[in-house]
Amino acid sequence: MFPAAPMAGYDRAITIFSPEGRLYQVEYAYEAVKRGMTALGVKAVDGVVLAVEKRSASPLVEGTEKIKMIDQHVGVAFAGLFGDARVLIDQARIYAQSHRLVYGEPVPIELLVKRICDIKQMYTQHGGVRPFGVAFLFAGVDRKGVHLIQTDPGGTYLRCKARAIGTGAQKAIDLFTREYTDNIKIDQAILLALRALKESMEDGFTAENIELAKIDVYDRTFKIFSTSEVQDFISKL
Amino acid sequence: MFPAAPMAGYDRAITIFSPEGRLYQVEYAYEAVKRGMTALGVKAVDGVVLAVEKRSASPLVEGTEKIKMIDQHVGVAFAGLFGDARVLIDQARIYAQSHRLVYGEPVPIELLVKRICDIKQMYTQHGGVRPFGVAFLFAGVDRKGVHLIQTDPGGTYLRCKARAIGTGAQKAIDLFTREYTDNIKIDQAILLALRALKESMEDGFTAENIELAKIDVYDRTFKIFSTSEVQDFISKL
Amino acid sequence: MFPAAPMAGYDRAITIFSPEGRLYQVEYAYEAVKRGMTALGVKAVDGVVLAVEKRSASPLVEGTEKIKMIDQHVGVAFAGLFGDARVLIDQARIYAQSHRLVYGEPVPIELLVKRICDIKQMYTQHGGVRPFGVAFLFAGVDRKGVHLIQTDPGGTYLRCKARAIGTGAQKAIDLFTREYTDNIKIDQAILLALRALKESMEDGFTAENIELAKIDVYDRTFKIFSTSEVQDFISKL
Amino acid sequence: MFPAAPMAGYDRAITIFSPEGRLYQVEYAYEAVKRGMTALGVKAVDGVVLAVEKRSASPLVEGTEKIKMIDQHVGVAFAGLFGDARVLIDQARIYAQSHRLVYGEPVPIELLVKRICDIKQMYTQHGGVRPFGVAFLFAGVDRKGVHLIQTDPGGTYLRCKARAIGTGAQKAIDLFTREYTDNIKIDQAILLALRALKESMEDGFTAENIELAKIDVYDRTFKIFSTSEVQDFISKL
Amino acid sequence: MFPAAPMAGYDRAITIFSPEGRLYQVEYAYEAVKRGMTALGVKAVDGVVLAVEKRSASPLVEGTEKIKMIDQHVGVAFAGLFGDARVLIDQARIYAQSHRLVYGEPVPIELLVKRICDIKQMYTQHGGVRPFGVAFLFAGVDRKGVHLIQTDPGGTYLRCKARAIGTGAQKAIDLFTREYTDNIKIDQAILLALRALKESMEDGFTAENIELAKIDVYDRTFKIFSTSEVQDFISKL
Amino acid sequence: MFPAAPMAGYDRAITIFSPEGRLYQVEYAYEAVKRGMTALGVKAVDGVVLAVEKRSASPLVEGTEKIKMIDQHVGVAFAGLFGDARVLIDQARIYAQSHRLVYGEPVPIELLVKRICDIKQMYTQHGGVRPFGVAFLFAGVDRKGVHLIQTDPGGTYLRCKARAIGTGAQKAIDLFTREYTDNIKIDQAILLALRALKESMEDGFTAENIELAKIDVYDRTFKIFSTSEVQDFISKL
Amino acid sequence: MFPAAPMAGYDRAITIFSPEGRLYQVEYAYEAVKRGMTALGVKAVDGVVLAVEKRSASPLVEGTEKIKMIDQHVGVAFAGLFGDARVLIDQARIYAQSHRLVYGEPVPIELLVKRICDIKQMYTQHGGVRPFGVAFLFAGVDRKGVHLIQTDPGGTYLRCKARAIGTGAQKAIDLFTREYTDNIKIDQAILLALRALKESMEDGFTAENIELAKIDVYDRTFKIFSTSEVQDFISKL
Repeated sequence: MFPAAPMAGYDRAITIFSPEGRLYQVEYAYEAVKRGMTALGVKAVDGVVLAVEKRSASPLVEGTEKIKMIDQHVGVAFAGLFGDARVLIDQARIYAQSHRLVYGEPVPIELLVKRICDIKQMYTQHGGVRPFGVAFLFAGVDRKGVHLIQTDPGGTYLRCKARAIGTGAQKAIDLFTREYTDNIKIDQAILLALRALKESMEDGFTAENIELAKIDVYDRTFKIFSTSEVQDFISKL
Repeated sequence: MFPAAPMAGYDRAITIFSPEGRLYQVEYAYEAVKRGMTALGVKAVDGVVLAVEKRSASPLVEGTEKIKMIDQHVGVAFAGLFGDARVLIDQARIYAQSHRLVYGEPVPIELLVKRICDIKQMYTQHGGVRPFGVAFLFAGVDRKGVHLIQTDPGGTYLRCKARAIGTGAQKAIDLFTREYTDNIKIDQAILLALRALKESMEDGFTAENIELAKIDVYDRTFKIFSTSEVQDFISKL
Repeated sequence: MFPAAPMAGYDRAITIFSPEGRLYQVEYAYEAVKRGMTALGVKAVDGVVLAVEKRSASPLVEGTEKIKMIDQHVGVAFAGLFGDARVLIDQARIYAQSHRLVYGEPVPIELLVKRICDIKQMYTQHGGVRPFGVAFLFAGVDRKGVHLIQTDPGGTYLRCKARAIGTGAQKAIDLFTREYTDNIKIDQAILLALRALKESMEDGFTAENIELAKIDVYDRTFKIFSTSEVQDFISKL
Repeated sequence: MFPAAPMAGYDRAITIFSPEGRLYQVEYAYEAVKRGMTALGVKAVDGVVLAVEKRSASPLVEGTEKIKMIDQHVGVAFAGLFGDARVLIDQARIYAQSHRLVYGEPVPIELLVKRICDIKQMYTQHGGVRPFGVAFLFAGVDRKGVHLIQTDPGGTYLRCKARAIGTGAQKAIDLFTREYTDNIKIDQAILLALRALKESMEDGFTAENIELAKIDVYDRTFKIFSTSEVQDFISKL
Repeated sequence: MFPAAPMAGYDRAITIFSPEGRLYQVEYAYEAVKRGMTALGVKAVDGVVLAVEKRSASPLVEGTEKIKMIDQHVGVAFAGLFGDARVLIDQARIYAQSHRLVYGEPVPIELLVKRICDIKQMYTQHGGVRPFGVAFLFAGVDRKGVHLIQTDPGGTYLRCKARAIGTGAQKAIDLFTREYTDNIKIDQAILLALRALKESMEDGFTAENIELAKIDVYDRTFKIFSTSEVQDFISKL
Repeated sequence: MFPAAPMAGYDRAITIFSPEGRLYQVEYAYEAVKRGMTALGVKAVDGVVLAVEKRSASPLVEGTEKIKMIDQHVGVAFAGLFGDARVLIDQARIYAQSHRLVYGEPVPIELLVKRICDIKQMYTQHGGVRPFGVAFLFAGVDRKGVHLIQTDPGGTYLRCKARAIGTGAQKAIDLFTREYTDNIKIDQAILLALRALKESMEDGFTAENIELAKIDVYDRTFKIFSTSEVQDFISKL
Repeated sequence: MFPAAPMAGYDRAITIFSPEGRLYQVEYAYEAVKRGMTALGVKAVDGVVLAVEKRSASPLVEGTEKIKMIDQHVGVAFAGLFGDARVLIDQARIYAQSHRLVYGEPVPIELLVKRICDIKQMYTQHGGVRPFGVAFLFAGVDRKGVHLIQTDPGGTYLRCKARAIGTGAQKAIDLFTREYTDNIKIDQAILLALRALKESMEDGFTAENIELAKIDVYDRTFKIFSTSEVQDFISKL
């Protein structure tokens, strides 16, 4: 996929541009994201949904949770390296808490995302470190409304309507492209998210292998569904 | 494009001159700028205009905003790496605010640009970092008048009358060379900017895919137009 | 096993992703774990068991203890480099003690594991260090119940029901897969752990060559069994 | 021009002497100076003149100013990297101001030059940085009289009577060698400087493409001429 | 012994794992130990013995002492680089003294050994240093009883009954394997140690070329024997 | 002159000995000294003389001064890199002044030389810097008498009777060897120095191209002669 | 002498062991010692003698002194790099003085030697520096008696009866081996030292080319002999 000759070393050190102006290490970090299990989000007019595959390699090992609450009004799903994700999620939680403490109100979600992206960017420009091998989907509700924002390993973020990252991302995005509508409601968004996740997982689409979360504009509280609640949604498909 | 033999390593470390006195890493960083979407600016006698392409890769993802206000009297458009741009824009905003606080007046625009260029230069001379892969077009009005200034990854800046950077820059510059006149007024400048952007974008020239901003000498306030306002300008073309 | 050509240097520096998004140094550190003697754990409804092989290379050298108590309510078994393990175990003990001191209660086990994994992750992202060549099985009981958690050299952790690491891990896991049941009691879990360890050791399965520990929900005290107690359990097999 | 074999790496790291005792990186930095537009100076008995080419690549871009005032009694022209020059010019201005503040009088010009050369030297001896790719011509009047001093990237400086640096330097120096006389007066020196600049520029010798400055012993004030003043001088040629 | 091809660089930097999970630099440091003169120890029920070869290369140079007292109740013998050993022995003495000062009692021997091993481990995980090329045999008596503990360059330690390190280690270990018994008394242990040392030295087994020390549970004082005392023991062989 | 094969890298990093125990970088720095213009000194019974060639490359550029006063009782001549020399001369002046301030008397000359040599040595032993490419001849009079001391780039110094460094050093030394006598007086020493300098310069031996200085035991004041004084001495040859 | 292939890089970086457990850089530093002029010492029952060759390359340059007093009761001779030696001798003098100040008595000589060896060892284990290219012979008298101790570049030291280092060391050692006796007196030791030095110098054995020093148990004062005193001793040979 990457021919050896033309790169000749440009891809081995983070602080170096290739002659075409590319940062290979950042692109390789994105490959770590693509190897992660699928995570996706759908923004509705009245809320936003996150869904991830958390299939375990063995019945004796619990699948790793890939949806985390950051603060009451915002949560995150990720694809990529678990250890890298945890470091950044801790940073996000600390930032959210200290914002609440200092300003007496929930952190604006785009501000929170920028903070995480600033850290990510720093790890692409300075020597002696590698980029973070993780991408996030932040989902939340604040004064400005409903947010679904993706970050990548280079520190870029994108405001999205419906988005998927990880191994099965393309299949999910194809479904979103065909079926997403701008006036979708949160209940439909949950079903759309589940259908997309089912499409992207080749098998094993069961409540145990899935994490599902939502936040809506009514109670503005990030909620991760229990396995039985997920089962109820699956039954509605 | 770059023959391997004559360079033989001079292009791999930022702190090294080639035998011809070139800094390849800075030149490669400029390639990252050339890969960015087109951004352009036109200076009029009574104001200055910025216009950028913000086309999104997918209808489910919002295009990334590439025009940002720095302070009331100055804004910026960029081409290149989003994460790198954000870091420098934050620096610019902090610098502008602290100047206002200390001196009680808006930061002179060339001083602001020099500050950003000093940061950029530092990243081309010290080891362990890479240059910033981003170019800016600063547009503003201060005591000295109307300014359109371009910065490049090496820390150089140029005072311009009309200028474009990014993928479609050459087509826009060709148009400017043919049609720009020194006594252009802000209203004409807006239309010239839009025509140049249309020329540089191969397709997809619609209000949704465009950002447009201006500042004039009358209210000295940087204004980013809404999509419907952009649509109105497009209708006038 | 690793063909030289396609890697060409991506596996030599910790801070570098390979083109496929892999961190070879972390994977090689896991090889150090696989070369360690087998350690395993079994979670029961009312407690959790750890068992390790501590066979010595010579009758004149005592086998190295590979089960350590961290705090009264939690212990750990490891496979991999002894020196690396000791450094992290010291960190875990200090963290547990300072938590007790500050909050007046035992450290939640998952929090403790996260702390150790944060240290591990840091050693995979920053230059000038190598990853820790050790994997742990943490076993403990806290307010949330019974825990068996595995950590790997990259800073990832997995919540497990039954798990083995080191040289003979696969044989033990195969046995667990066939025979582990969710409603297993601590007494049965001890016997299952011993059977799995016997399976994974090719010979030398004697009380002298084994370490065995458990903690249950009744007295919530991590207990490492004496050689004669281990002998008693072996007789029951 | 530089045969690859005999150098074999001696030219790639700043802190290394070649077997012949040369510092290639410093020599390459001088190549960056040679690629810059011509700057020149002429010392008269009663003052000193600086002249530079500031031709722009495009009519839509203003030429970059390459003559800067440092303090009332001293100014500078440069050839080479714009960003590098600006960093050192800022240092020179700060040093001149702080000298005025501390000692209540203008900084002696040779002291100022030494300060800049000390910074330049430091960047040739320590690892992790590259030399400054810029040469200066300092022109000023102080208690000791009239000064024209050139600095190079290695931190050496030369006291000169007439001197040129950059792309067209040799042609200008040839003219100076033929026509410079020690008893030249400032008015003649201006004309000599313009003739030398004309000689070194292949075409485009117009007032718009030229910067001209002087300082004399009568008012001891560094003065950069306006375009119309330059035009007047050109008419006298 | 080490084929060049498969290693290809994994053995040159301390912070790097080989694909098999090995740390070659630590293994090479152990080679420095193997090149050192033989040092050995024998644990008895009522004490422990250390013996080392201190043969000198020339009659005009005194053999280097390789048994050192750390504190009254503990001493050490080493094989490997003299300079490295001295640095760690100084650390051990300081640690022992400060423990006595703070807690008012002799430092527990295993705690002391862990401290030294922590330093050793650190030098195997961080860049810019090499591992210590020395192995120790600590011998001492504390509240927990009699101790003979070996440390290696990687920071691992082993509790031993009888152990030898350095050039002639294998011959000594073979003898120990044949003749060591668990109920050995200190007087017999001295003779066994001398026999093992004689076996491991090919010639030159004289009192002048030997260092011998013991500590027993009766007076708990580490004693290095004089040459004439060693001669007396040799006569008993 | 240096065959490529046997060195194979030992000459590229300052902190490395070659297999023969040589420090190539220090030797290469000495090549920079050899490329410098000739500087020489002659010690008489009642004083000491320094003389250097300061020929300029062009009549429009003044030759660089290579004799500097350090303090009233001591001066220095150098050959090699101008920028490097200036840094060390500044250090010498500061050291001499602070000694005068603290102890109330002139700095002993050998102490001053040692200080400069300590700095030079440090730059040959630590990574990330290169050695200073300059040699000095210190000349002075203190309580212990008359001193002529040479320093080299490695930090070694030699007490000399008559000595030359730089391009023409060998010719001057040959003359000294033939004609220097231990009972030479300062007036004769000046003439001997001039004759040696004439011998070492192939042409251009005129008062303008020469610097000459002396210090004697009568007034103990370092004096640099003016061009007309030099001319007077030349007439006496 | 060193075949290129088997080393393949192990000899280029100080912090690296070769597969055989050797530190090549330390060994190469010892080569620098072997290239130094001969220095030797002889221990008598009532004192100790140092003698060195200080032949100069030219009659116009004084030979460099290689015997230095550290404190009244101890002196040192060295072979190897002059600059490196001076740095360590300064450290030794400071250490001796501060010991006198703090404890009110002369520094024990072995303690002083250990201090110097600790510095030497540190420069063999940490990156970014090279080892010291110098060996010392310390000679002194303290409470414990008469001492002659050699240190090498790796930080090892040896207690000696008679010892030589540098270019002619082997010839001197051969003489010592044949003629040294344990009951030698200081007067005989001086003559033995001179004979050994004569043997090791191929020609030029004159009082001017020799340094000689002694310390005895009667006045415990390190004394460097004058040239005429050396001549007297030579006459006695």
